[in-house]
Amino acid sequence: MTAPLLPGSTIGILGGGQLGRMLSVAASRLGFKTCIYEPGADCPASHVANHHIQADYDDTKALERFANSVDVITYEFENIPTTALDILETLRPIHPGREALRISQDRLTEKTFLQDLGLQIAPFAPVDDADSLAQAIDTIGTPSILKTRRFGYDGKGQARLTSPADASKALTDLQGAPAVLEGFVDFTAEISVIAARGTDGRVAAFDPGQNVHQDGILRTTTVPAPLPNRTLTDAVLTAGRILNALDYVGVLGVEFFVTPAGLLINEIAPRVHNSGHWTQNGCMTDQFEQHIRAVAGWPLGDGSRHSDIRMENLIGDEMDRVPSLAADPTCALHLYGKSDTKPGRKMGHANFLTPQT
Amino acid sequence: MTAPLLPGSTIGILGGGQLGRMLSVAASRLGFKTCIYEPGADCPASHVANHHIQADYDDTKALERFANSVDVITYEFENIPTTALDILETLRPIHPGREALRISQDRLTEKTFLQDLGLQIAPFAPVDDADSLAQAIDTIGTPSILKTRRFGYDGKGQARLTSPADASKALTDLQGAPAVLEGFVDFTAEISVIAARGTDGRVAAFDPGQNVHQDGILRTTTVPAPLPNRTLTDAVLTAGRILNALDYVGVLGVEFFVTPAGLLINEIAPRVHNSGHWTQNGCMTDQFEQHIRAVAGWPLGDGSRHSDIRMENLIGDEMDRVPSLAADPTCALHLYGKSDTKPGRKMGHANFLTPQT
Repeated sequence: MTAPLLPGSTIGILGGGQLGRMLSVAASRLGFKTCIYEPGADCPASHVANHHIQADYDDTKALERFANSVDVITYEFENIPTTALDILETLRPIHPGREALRISQDRLTEKTFLQDLGLQIAPFAPVDDADSLAQAIDTIGTPSILKTRRFGYDGKGQARLTSPADASKALTDLQGAPAVLEGFVDFTAEISVIAARGTDGRVAAFDPGQNVHQDGILRTTTVPAPLPNRTLTDAVLTAGRILNALDYVGVLGVEFFVTPAGLLINEIAPRVHNSGHWTQNGCMTDQFEQHIRAVAGWPLGDGSRHSDIRMENLIGDEMDRVPSLAADPTCALHLYGKSDTKPGRKMGHANFLTPQT
Repeated sequence: MTAPLLPGSTIGILGGGQLGRMLSVAASRLGFKTCIYEPGADCPASHVANHHIQADYDDTKALERFANSVDVITYEFENIPTTALDILETLRPIHPGREALRISQDRLTEKTFLQDLGLQIAPFAPVDDADSLAQAIDTIGTPSILKTRRFGYDGKGQARLTSPADASKALTDLQGAPAVLEGFVDFTAEISVIAARGTDGRVAAFDPGQNVHQDGILRTTTVPAPLPNRTLTDAVLTAGRILNALDYVGVLGVEFFVTPAGLLINEIAPRVHNSGHWTQNGCMTDQFEQHIRAVAGWPLGDGSRHSDIRMENLIGDEMDRVPSLAADPTCALHLYGKSDTKPGRKMGHANFLTPQT
């Protein structure tokens, strides 16, 4: 266990989107400064950070300047180039660590890791070309989904196969990128667990939320999830096993499919997670502060849920809803300060307090 | 009623201390940027603001640059020089307005205003010199307190008189500044109301909290205040009358003495208030967001209390308590990022969730 970071220290955050923005706010509550590393100008996190280094991930000088100006490094997205990490890790601690990044950056590595832990996941097979796809279809069957091994998010880098005849179109859609064929899972619900592990090895988890996705993008999260306690407990224990196996420090998101045969893990994300935004209005310690506490070597906080919440993402022109949401006494608004509204772009979210169940 | 400020707009905040810091965070939640005007370097608010103009209040060019870079102006302290306000108000709206500032900047004006509204305050008399002090002592008697009319805060600019013989020492202590002699109030408790009024004229108030001061500095606020409902309702209605009388926009703090003869107003503050910090962990909309909503012309939010809270200020070397507070699951920490710890300096506060009464 490392010594806790003193108030006044600086936390470096790779990525300047909404997650970096809300991490930065949480860090300020605990008396920390933040420095954001982000190639884009006027990024959401820079509005609430002490410093923004605007540079690309292949800019060695800027990466060194960043690392030398902070006490510890964390990130808001997992697809950080390995070459950048190689430079940063020689200069400052990075939490969550390289192993979590290595695993979550590659869908095939992640699935193999989870399978080796004895956890339940959908059937999968690696795909590199037409031959291996044909083989994978033989094993997995259709319907199934071809997903790129790297850089997929919000439903990007995916192609559905309803029959073997879709194989060549799917390969074309993914432009020949190394991929994984996943068996189609007939789920009754999707849930996620936002869990945390401190440098002292202690683990904590927020109540699991039930998620609804549309076109691969999260639309709503509801807590408590209307599912049997046994299912929710299974999910929390599974998240705990993953955290311990990775000797993890920070917040981790784990997405599950609920099926008649039990829980299957969909994917893990080594960072704060969209499906944990409800914690901002449902808990004394939210996922952002929990992550900062872990990364700073502080004890984890109390993430008990004091309210029932439904989180709705505001995507693209749903920003038009802001005037009515602002007038809704059951709604807590969280806007990201993005200047351009684009279709599919996450612009904010709303946490609705729902009557206690 | 003015049109509501659109997300992406910039709110200018005069003053870069902890109140400006927490206002800036609240503004970010609603998608606003902030620009801080503050003479000091590395001020708490600048760590979470989009921009910091470091300049003095007599710097006309900097004031103009500030006003021209923001959409609306607010402030974290009431003692803004009139000359600065004269420049700013020609360029941008200022909320709360000039009348609230004029009244709260001068203790004598404030007391006269409250008295003219028919509200109960401690007996008072103006003091400019030894003669008027002697006259004031004749009317008010002793024990009493001599307070400067302007720039008093956290118990500064005050001298106690236990007998008429203390008169000349009290005058010396206040260095001849225009003052007010206040009759000593024998109170059983101190409470405050944090209330808000929107541009639409609607008024809302948080639950009154009971305050404990030490050496003129707030130490704790407890909600709910353990007092009869009648007393708390009186306090809320009084705050509402003041807001309406001032055609006020924003959050106002009103401090009361609870006496056997009823409530007496101690003082008002045209801004977010230390005794309202409990709202950060007790309400969905806290005092900072409520202020930003009002200033931005948005509808007020729901400030209903969902938890019982005791707020404790962390003053000076009480920062030593941070490690144990960080490990206390009932405690939500709020640190201000001040680099120097000085005796009497507010460094942070802790909101303790207490069992529901």
